[in-house]
Amino acid sequence: MSSNLPPKGMRDFLPKEKAIRNFLMGKIREEYTKNGFREIETSEIENIENMQNSDGGENTKLVFQIMKRGEKLDLQKAQNPSDLADLALRFDLTLPLSRFYGNNRNELPTIFKAFQMGYVFRAERPQKGRYRSFMQCDIDIIGDESNLAEIELISTLHKTLKSTGLDHFKFVINDRRILKDICVRAGFEEEHFEDIAISLDKLDKVGNEGIRKELFAKGYDLANIDDLQELNEKIAAEGIAFVKEFSPSGAENVMQIMDVLSRMDLGIEIAFEHSLVRGMGYYTGTIFEIVHKDFNSSIGGGGRYDNMIGKLSGSDAPACGFSIGFERLCDLLMNDESIDLQEKRLALFYDERDDLAQVMKTANTLREEYVVSVYVKKKKFKKQIDRLFEDGFEFMAVYSPELKISKLGE
Amino acid sequence: MSSNLPPKGMRDFLPKEKAIRNFLMGKIREEYTKNGFREIETSEIENIENMQNSDGGENTKLVFQIMKRGEKLDLQKAQNPSDLADLALRFDLTLPLSRFYGNNRNELPTIFKAFQMGYVFRAERPQKGRYRSFMQCDIDIIGDESNLAEIELISTLHKTLKSTGLDHFKFVINDRRILKDICVRAGFEEEHFEDIAISLDKLDKVGNEGIRKELFAKGYDLANIDDLQELNEKIAAEGIAFVKEFSPSGAENVMQIMDVLSRMDLGIEIAFEHSLVRGMGYYTGTIFEIVHKDFNSSIGGGGRYDNMIGKLSGSDAPACGFSIGFERLCDLLMNDESIDLQEKRLALFYDERDDLAQVMKTANTLREEYVVSVYVKKKKFKKQIDRLFEDGFEFMAVYSPELKISKLGE
Repeated sequence: MSSNLPPKGMRDFLPKEKAIRNFLMGKIREEYTKNGFREIETSEIENIENMQNSDGGENTKLVFQIMKRGEKLDLQKAQNPSDLADLALRFDLTLPLSRFYGNNRNELPTIFKAFQMGYVFRAERPQKGRYRSFMQCDIDIIGDESNLAEIELISTLHKTLKSTGLDHFKFVINDRRILKDICVRAGFEEEHFEDIAISLDKLDKVGNEGIRKELFAKGYDLANIDDLQELNEKIAAEGIAFVKEFSPSGAENVMQIMDVLSRMDLGIEIAFEHSLVRGMGYYTGTIFEIVHKDFNSSIGGGGRYDNMIGKLSGSDAPACGFSIGFERLCDLLMNDESIDLQEKRLALFYDERDDLAQVMKTANTLREEYVVSVYVKKKKFKKQIDRLFEDGFEFMAVYSPELKISKLGE
Repeated sequence: MSSNLPPKGMRDFLPKEKAIRNFLMGKIREEYTKNGFREIETSEIENIENMQNSDGGENTKLVFQIMKRGEKLDLQKAQNPSDLADLALRFDLTLPLSRFYGNNRNELPTIFKAFQMGYVFRAERPQKGRYRSFMQCDIDIIGDESNLAEIELISTLHKTLKSTGLDHFKFVINDRRILKDICVRAGFEEEHFEDIAISLDKLDKVGNEGIRKELFAKGYDLANIDDLQELNEKIAAEGIAFVKEFSPSGAENVMQIMDVLSRMDLGIEIAFEHSLVRGMGYYTGTIFEIVHKDFNSSIGGGGRYDNMIGKLSGSDAPACGFSIGFERLCDLLMNDESIDLQEKRLALFYDERDDLAQVMKTANTLREEYVVSVYVKKKKFKKQIDRLFEDGFEFMAVYSPELKISKLGE
């Protein structure tokens, strides 16, 4: 007999866990839809050459590859493992979205507001809280070059998180163009920006001193590194107004977004954060994250990526998107006692001498108000009830012409 | 640039298609839950040895295998392809359910009423209407040896299908024990029953004459084959009452189930069908199918399998289950004009000189009643409206202090 556990890093979900996942997916679906976003679904499996051509960076090393089948699988002729695979499990939802957009562009509106929730797969070294299969939840606006897209995304995300009962979260925002202008003003060459950004992104892990050391080790001029730090200190003190002096496009974009969002009276907390980098090289403008007091890293993030769709799909289009940490939110909700999953579970007992058709008719009537399961009364009735109470049943009734519902555990 | 199509036999879903899938999943979830079934989720990926040990018959040949990674992938040492794979995509939901039950039995109630909806993967030769990745939707009762399980399953299925607006379907029912007793009465050896059942299951494809030929070719006695046919003709004429004479347990089970269901006043159409076999060898008692006038084959089916859970998971338990043809039902619903997906989509237009915060506040107010997207008014406004109408927008409004909503296409 082999193990009944799911594979390493993979999970099954018990009814309570699944109910939380459904609750969260339901809230996301409801709120995103109300805000004009339309749900799509993409294949979990991709042709392997699409994955290899993609922009996924480190993630492409974590791909689960699917073996060829039948005659195509030729162990003798295979020079290396990649000759044996023709398909792969996706590692994110961005590549499938781009492919989807390229494939269906003619059937989609000029401004396409889309969201998808689906599993992605990464062969990471398993460790606590890190899964090899996990739900991603992406929301994107393709085809809108104005920052109405950013405003719609952030306000939709805010309303969605609020609707789950979540609190104590806030948005931080920056613009890749500001980051670049800071580097240039500090004296770095513009072409080195992406490389410098990779170092700057490590602030949480290595601190300011660590970034200085890394940039120096990479061979950058110490004078520029000093200037960069001084500039960052001045921005921290004087804020976006100072940034506007040397990075007008980026600063105005950020200021507009923050201004409109604050005047929408939704209580959105949003702050400019010049140290926000977001690792992915494909971002071209606004970048943002959602931070929560209980987590060190973000519970969501995204930004504008105006070139990637064209690069991946062959159909140029400006785009802006957000990904939220579905698994993290599930963890938060699992510990939230205040969530009402609206399960009023009732056990209806009958005696073997009762007419089962009448019992079932009674059950169906009760189902207008309760979640009902029917059980034949056992000899050890008290024990039977106790076990059902442990399993989460709140109510019970014994079939009779005058039905009486009682609350369990009282 | 590689192709933007999903891999062969795999699909992406456009918003309309996804909305239908969500509609169907929502109805299933709502009705199953109301009837006391609890949703679980199992991993899409299994350890490959679990798949090889399973009872999946032909399906085990259609497994998508996932290659080992890193040092474990050793092309030099591999004798055959199976040395290169450690994981596989599941081909059904039954094996994962059994594994789940074995793994979590202590946390589950004595009678566990469960359902799951999830993708399964089969490397079938691609052809029209046959997919390599498709949604399965299973509902099972584990731990109840009485036919209350069958009654709960069939009535829940009936209510669920009705709630989707589906009509013109009916249930057919038989019992494996009846099939066996028919064979014995016709003079066959009891130990040959499974082999004979495989031939009997081909009635739809080869007809009575084909079955006769196949049994004869297999070496069975012509006298027995003749007796079998005569017996079946007599059952067709006289019905279950005649069956009771030589197969009392099976007949009483079927009669009880039909009796209770008919007296529940749900309008359930159910008929005894002695030619119903269902291929899988693991069924031990009741078997049933749902047939629909628009389909040659069934849109759902299942039965009692009292030994399989124990065999697969090491934890013995009686079980009875149903699987419905999710993809077929989606196809039916896609063509059903009467479905109301409750999308009241409204386009809110604004002028670039308007205060965007006020526009967005208006949008949020409208979102209490409509699904709202916000668009800046283009110069070719008429054309812009026409395209949104084509995309499915039903309503529009232009932002102003006195907002007026108009219906599109009128």
